[in-house]
Amino acid sequence: MTPQTSSADPRYPIGRFHYSGPLSDEGRAEAIQRIAEAPARLRAAVAGLNDAQLDTPYREGGWTVRQVVHHVPDSHMNSYVRVRLALTEEEPLIKPYDEARWAELRDSSHEPVEVSLVLLEALHSRWVTLLRSLDEEGWARTFRHPETGPVSLDRAAALYAWHGRHHTAHITELRERKGW
Amino acid sequence: MTPQTSSADPRYPIGRFHYSGPLSDEGRAEAIQRIAEAPARLRAAVAGLNDAQLDTPYREGGWTVRQVVHHVPDSHMNSYVRVRLALTEEEPLIKPYDEARWAELRDSSHEPVEVSLVLLEALHSRWVTLLRSLDEEGWARTFRHPETGPVSLDRAAALYAWHGRHHTAHITELRERKGW
Amino acid sequence: MTPQTSSADPRYPIGRFHYSGPLSDEGRAEAIQRIAEAPARLRAAVAGLNDAQLDTPYREGGWTVRQVVHHVPDSHMNSYVRVRLALTEEEPLIKPYDEARWAELRDSSHEPVEVSLVLLEALHSRWVTLLRSLDEEGWARTFRHPETGPVSLDRAAALYAWHGRHHTAHITELRERKGW
Amino acid sequence: MTPQTSSADPRYPIGRFHYSGPLSDEGRAEAIQRIAEAPARLRAAVAGLNDAQLDTPYREGGWTVRQVVHHVPDSHMNSYVRVRLALTEEEPLIKPYDEARWAELRDSSHEPVEVSLVLLEALHSRWVTLLRSLDEEGWARTFRHPETGPVSLDRAAALYAWHGRHHTAHITELRERKGW
Repeated sequence: MTPQTSSADPRYPIGRFHYSGPLSDEGRAEAIQRIAEAPARLRAAVAGLNDAQLDTPYREGGWTVRQVVHHVPDSHMNSYVRVRLALTEEEPLIKPYDEARWAELRDSSHEPVEVSLVLLEALHSRWVTLLRSLDEEGWARTFRHPETGPVSLDRAAALYAWHGRHHTAHITELRERKGW
Repeated sequence: MTPQTSSADPRYPIGRFHYSGPLSDEGRAEAIQRIAEAPARLRAAVAGLNDAQLDTPYREGGWTVRQVVHHVPDSHMNSYVRVRLALTEEEPLIKPYDEARWAELRDSSHEPVEVSLVLLEALHSRWVTLLRSLDEEGWARTFRHPETGPVSLDRAAALYAWHGRHHTAHITELRERKGW
Repeated sequence: MTPQTSSADPRYPIGRFHYSGPLSDEGRAEAIQRIAEAPARLRAAVAGLNDAQLDTPYREGGWTVRQVVHHVPDSHMNSYVRVRLALTEEEPLIKPYDEARWAELRDSSHEPVEVSLVLLEALHSRWVTLLRSLDEEGWARTFRHPETGPVSLDRAAALYAWHGRHHTAHITELRERKGW
Repeated sequence: MTPQTSSADPRYPIGRFHYSGPLSDEGRAEAIQRIAEAPARLRAAVAGLNDAQLDTPYREGGWTVRQVVHHVPDSHMNSYVRVRLALTEEEPLIKPYDEARWAELRDSSHEPVEVSLVLLEALHSRWVTLLRSLDEEGWARTFRHPETGPVSLDRAAALYAWHGRHHTAHITELRERKGW
């Protein structure tokens, strides 16, 4: 579903997101499994880090590990809301958000990471239940992004299956480079 | 801040929401304290209920206790997103959602309530950190609701301090009536 | 089951523990309900407190609020272990612990309270499931304390239903006295 | 610290526990890191499993996946209690427990696994804080097991660093064999 080759660009440790058309049943099952695993993978990625390590940028000029962790539920909450909007309205126009500014807000930059790990676990638990309840018609439903246009739930699931692994790899690659 | 008188209308056990102008420092501290307490109050309200009790409507024709519990983080996630939008954009136009239809989705109607209690605890922890970081200028920032117009963070905080208690009272009043 | 009268002695805000013989079915249901509610009551009791408040002794010369919170799962873990021992061995001799010294260990004196609130929620969830599975014979099973002799599961359930409320009242009374 | 070679015996997927004398500083850091990671590894190991899969024995005649998950905090709670006893008494005699019978109790055999994943996360968080606070003298402290004699905290930490990985591998090997 998504390329596994590691990349020279530290911003894209698992490569950029690719998507080509509606998911097969296997593709949907794989996306759900990855969304189900994401909170545990992120929790494992930060296990045992101290505050100084959490406040280290994952790359020069990039977010700190702490900001990466808080960004994941910020982003996935927005995505979960969009999925629910798509299921309850006809191609609703959704509201984007400025992820760079969000990451500067107090609770994204200073809060202990545990709170966002727990938030992600609970959010993904509901999300997985919801995705598993979809039939063919459900997966085809769409929301509309003001810039990129209509997005099907197939595409949204594939994107967020990638997104959790993308940010987790930011942290695991940093730990490998640092020998943490 | 909000009237405490009980009401004959079972939909409004603590009365309707009232708001008159910007909050004082005490009003803000009280709103934050209520938002901080809300997850524990909701958890206490459902402690010990079995599945049959959780699937009982809180009033004739109303949501089940389970749906009430899942609605609270649905609503508060949307509110938290709006607060963050107001702090990072100039009076952004936010996207409302259809709460009645959301409550019919699989994860709102069937999931164990524990997941939403945990979600609420984590979400409110970040929300309280964020609200405590606001200065006078921050509290005055606004988002715009397409129907009701501009909403300041003062008003949003007062509203959600009321909202958590409002739904918790739906459950505690049901338990009192039923002798549970 | 336990006296509700407030006491002049700040160490016993809800009075000392009393027990007179095996519990009735109602007494067992009430004990289980109190054990089910205890984590939410404790969570509500500390909601919104800052670190300085958490590090305030609940009475002169007493534990800090933080130590009280960490003591509750310390104590209840030991109790849960004893209940399981009683159900799987013939009147096993249990190992007491030195609660004063335990409260001085690093994780009881300095850790954020959230971790112990979560620990208590998970522990009580399993404990309630276990207690609800007991038949008459199960409730009569005993462990043996080296100093006080045999303890039935009826007595243990009544004691811990009291114990959670006892320590929660230490905190709520302090907040009332301090106006927090 | 512990051998990584896979074993033909499905009961010992990462091999049996080996220990040879006090840990070095690196050995202690590694044991703490493994204890810190264990809850996330176990959570990842069961992510996405349905109830039928959770109720599958990990090997013929063995515990179900669900029983394995609940066993881990059962065992680690006992270990954590022993560590605390060793730090607050002089070589205390600890109370063993019958793990096979514990795994038959209602909450170990039927409860959703989420509760034990959360319990383990909270317990290990406190455990890691405690282990990090130990000096050389602390690591050398001992409890006494009625059958196997004195156990130092060095040995206990090494054993439980192995134990979490041991049971997680029961589950991951089952998933690999089953193609789940």
